[in-house]
Amino acid sequence: MYVIIVYDIKVERVNKVKSFLRQYLFWIQNSVFEGEASESEFKIIHDGLMKIIDTEVDSVIIYKLRMADVMNREVLGIEKAPIDEIL
Amino acid sequence: MYVIIVYDIKVERVNKVKSFLRQYLFWIQNSVFEGEASESEFKIIHDGLMKIIDTEVDSVIIYKLRMADVMNREVLGIEKAPIDEIL
Repeated sequence: MYVIIVYDIKVERVNKVKSFLRQYLFWIQNSVFEGEASESEFKIIHDGLMKIIDTEVDSVIIYKLRMADVMNREVLGIEKAPIDEIL
Repeated sequence: MYVIIVYDIKVERVNKVKSFLRQYLFWIQNSVFEGEASESEFKIIHDGLMKIIDTEVDSVIIYKLRMADVMNREVLGIEKAPIDEIL
């Protein structure tokens, strides 16, 4: 599956979420990660995020796509972390 | 089509982008908008963003999906702008 994760979380947890997600997905821009993930990797990502965030105040949205090519991705302006060669 | 837009732009342009996008899509959380858009609406959104942002320093990523149901959406923590009733 292809995963896009966006988050709006308290600043004190940003670095922890960022270093956690970097193990599995690509940092795209502030608060946005993308990448392929197997079902088992997705479970690790999901459970790991649930351990890090404060579910009372933080917000994480996960968009799960069966595969990358059901989605067309367009960048306006600069690409903070070019992942073209990966897609 | 279903559109997810994430942006990482200079603070002085955030309000302008936000009020522009609110005309067409739903604010989901900081720097994230989602919603259905026709081809003509998409063109207006695309061209409008290109007029607002500084393409040398700002970054906007548009994920275009043929339709919402190729995507599964999961929220961890709070939902800053519940759009369940719309999807």
